[in-house]
Amino acid sequence: MKRKSLCDDACTVARSLDVIGDWWSLLIMRDVLDGKRRFGELQRSLGVAKNILALPLKDLVASGILETAASPDGRHKEYFATEKGRALRPVLVAIGQWGAEHLFEAEEARYVSADPVDRLPLAALQLRAQDGREVQGDEVVIRLWQPAKTPEPSET
Amino acid sequence: MKRKSLCDDACTVARSLDVIGDWWSLLIMRDVLDGKRRFGELQRSLGVAKNILALPLKDLVASGILETAASPDGRHKEYFATEKGRALRPVLVAIGQWGAEHLFEAEEARYVSADPVDRLPLAALQLRAQDGREVQGDEVVIRLWQPAKTPEPSET
Repeated sequence: MKRKSLCDDACTVARSLDVIGDWWSLLIMRDVLDGKRRFGELQRSLGVAKNILALPLKDLVASGILETAASPDGRHKEYFATEKGRALRPVLVAIGQWGAEHLFEAEEARYVSADPVDRLPLAALQLRAQDGREVQGDEVVIRLWQPAKTPEPSET
Repeated sequence: MKRKSLCDDACTVARSLDVIGDWWSLLIMRDVLDGKRRFGELQRSLGVAKNILALPLKDLVASGILETAASPDGRHKEYFATEKGRALRPVLVAIGQWGAEHLFEAEEARYVSADPVDRLPLAALQLRAQDGREVQGDEVVIRLWQPAKTPEPSET
């Protein structure tokens, strides 16, 4: 479903949600980044019908978030996250941390993104300015930002 | 639409997406956290029909993410983010940063979450362990975590 927005063309959130805003996509990425590679594995994990899984998988490949390769024995297609797909990790961490804080009872067991060394949940994501200052969520401003132009190669 | 997942009951990502996985919800939160308060403002910003906006708005209120209050002149209903809703800021920042990095041309102007002081885009979110060590996205492990029980008050 498409919608219009005053800042859609330039809004980083809206443009992202056009690509990953279908929540199947993020659940698929959760599973792929957790090591699941085959259609059947994903289907079992997500508990969905083949045709419901097939469409977002195709979209994720078309968007360059997943890529496919043959399994080592050549008998199966496997899905892998591209660099663009692996870059979704902070999105999944942010979503999971919000849920852990606001949708679980204090003592309720939950699956979390954890540090491989101490096995504890990752620290809460902190918003920071470019110079490292911590920024509170309520202080954040939304603004139109124009990246600096790359200097043109000199003619002389 | 509901789906089953092996870890749904306990998966922080899946439980969150059950609540905010409809992408209208996140676009609405983007606008509310940017200061839009009235139905008409949100409708104009999102460019959607009233009935399409009404349902996710109602859900966000029911989920305790938004609350409503009368405008100062008592003539309009206004929407405000609760603490639970304001806590979605890192989710929106993470989504926007992913889009800025992967869906925009290098020199393309874009709306970003910025620091109010230097007006620059926020620094890229970094994953960290509880002790402050930086953790790479590919190192993150997903695990079932049981928070420590709060000690029972002593009987003696």
